[in-house]
Amino acid sequence: MSLAEQVLEGNIRAAARLMRDIDDGRQEAIEELKQLYPHTGSAFIIGITGPPGAGKSTLVDQLTASFRSRGKKVGVVAIDPTSPFTGGAILGDRIRMNRHSCDEGVFIRSLATRGALGGLSRSTSDVALVMDALGMDIVIIETVGVGQDEVDIVKEAHTTCVVMVPGLGDDIQAIKAGILEIGDIFVVNKADRDGADRTARELSTMLDMRAATEGSWNPQVLRTEATRGTGINELTDEIMSHRDYFLSSGAIDNFLRERTQRHFMSILRDTLFKKTLQYVAQDDYLSGLIERMTDHRIDPYSAVEEIVTKMMPN
Amino acid sequence: MSLAEQVLEGNIRAAARLMRDIDDGRQEAIEELKQLYPHTGSAFIIGITGPPGAGKSTLVDQLTASFRSRGKKVGVVAIDPTSPFTGGAILGDRIRMNRHSCDEGVFIRSLATRGALGGLSRSTSDVALVMDALGMDIVIIETVGVGQDEVDIVKEAHTTCVVMVPGLGDDIQAIKAGILEIGDIFVVNKADRDGADRTARELSTMLDMRAATEGSWNPQVLRTEATRGTGINELTDEIMSHRDYFLSSGAIDNFLRERTQRHFMSILRDTLFKKTLQYVAQDDYLSGLIERMTDHRIDPYSAVEEIVTKMMPN
Repeated sequence: MSLAEQVLEGNIRAAARLMRDIDDGRQEAIEELKQLYPHTGSAFIIGITGPPGAGKSTLVDQLTASFRSRGKKVGVVAIDPTSPFTGGAILGDRIRMNRHSCDEGVFIRSLATRGALGGLSRSTSDVALVMDALGMDIVIIETVGVGQDEVDIVKEAHTTCVVMVPGLGDDIQAIKAGILEIGDIFVVNKADRDGADRTARELSTMLDMRAATEGSWNPQVLRTEATRGTGINELTDEIMSHRDYFLSSGAIDNFLRERTQRHFMSILRDTLFKKTLQYVAQDDYLSGLIERMTDHRIDPYSAVEEIVTKMMPN
Repeated sequence: MSLAEQVLEGNIRAAARLMRDIDDGRQEAIEELKQLYPHTGSAFIIGITGPPGAGKSTLVDQLTASFRSRGKKVGVVAIDPTSPFTGGAILGDRIRMNRHSCDEGVFIRSLATRGALGGLSRSTSDVALVMDALGMDIVIIETVGVGQDEVDIVKEAHTTCVVMVPGLGDDIQAIKAGILEIGDIFVVNKADRDGADRTARELSTMLDMRAATEGSWNPQVLRTEATRGTGINELTDEIMSHRDYFLSSGAIDNFLRERTQRHFMSILRDTLFKKTLQYVAQDDYLSGLIERMTDHRIDPYSAVEEIVTKMMPN
């Protein structure tokens, strides 16, 4: 029986193996993903993003418990920062969410940010696809930091929660502005800290300035203290409200089309590149070319033209 | 006279125009870059990275002044976070480094993180190339945040300074670990703050654990108060020491070869993709394919295989 078939039967071990293959960028994983694809599309995907120090892991832990208490099976994809040197996930072996470890309705997976071909958002969406096929009702994607990577990742989610925290300094203004448009729900975590009121107020003001379209979703600013579980139930309710809006307004159709297109483009990019690399790696052609470029005897743009003309004669 | 020729004559306006074309991803920019390429390679590139709130902009301002006082012409590429919604640089119009605005030996350019084809590290290195061709002795690249994007960007630099700041919370541990290997020099800025000793000590301990190879560079932890100019001269000295090490140890040869290869691969990836997109965009072929994928009638991997076989028959 193929890995894909085992995953569709709910086999956790098979899912873990397939995810490892995806994370490692193994070609075999693609055949399995092809088999899974027709059976996916039912999981609801939630993205959790925000700056380091905002308490995202604890919040995800609490959200997991909350969805479990509502009878949902929950998958968690946690993006861990990778050491560029060792290539491994730094936090991959940290003990995450101990209390769910005996719960078969929870599946947690750390994904290394190793910058694999196709990038992190591809791996993330492939891993989410496996969790979907495995029968998880909810898939939570937790990112590290707030950059373009994270924006790309949370685009995979139906609902995106942006987690802020009081007192992170001035540069945070920039972050706020950048992520304002990707958030469906804003959370001020560690709401017992000094400055929580101010952070919440600032966020609300910025959201008010965002031009609201008739019938469009109106993002709220919620407060939580994840370490004590305060505000989690309200956050879960708000996520489900956004889900209802998403499904009933028809916004989901556009979302799915755009996500599919992005996914497809990313695979296309990689595949073209891989096939070309295999070709140019023959007979020291590539290493000779790089030598000439390093010595500034040919510029990289002209070198690329030379290769593309060979590969794509039409 | 072409833009490239004007840049090589030191024309600031021409350089600014070319950089804008690069930032906008315009095809014409490539022909100009081809012309510039043989005349580049003499600027020394410094990367400044670290979490939001670390005071990087002020530090870069001070470093610029310091290099100017040593008779160097300084280019600054500041990566600004982009709003995914508007596509423009949020801080692009902020008044940066006022005091250098009348100095012809300083050229400052904000680059939007708009996620252009080829990614930010490509645009950054192209803009640095223009500054190099323009005759800048030093090019400082300042990133926002600490993620994979930033790691990719600072790989373009000969010397990378990682700027930390006391009291950014626990998640910072993860960031530290991730950037430990990319830093040639570590800076604890805002060194007058509580916890500066602890941050510096922690960094030193982590650096000590890094296996040192015989004759390799030994990164130091420096302290600065950028707002008051304290420690800037020492930092400038340390950067020049690293430069000397880089040139005399021969480490530069490997660095240049790897950077050229990365640059070339990135251009190759984009060009293959662009050419393929032009092809599939004809006759509604692409939109039909995306429709079939969205309806789960074909998986994206099989769709890509179909196209690649057409484009690359060999």
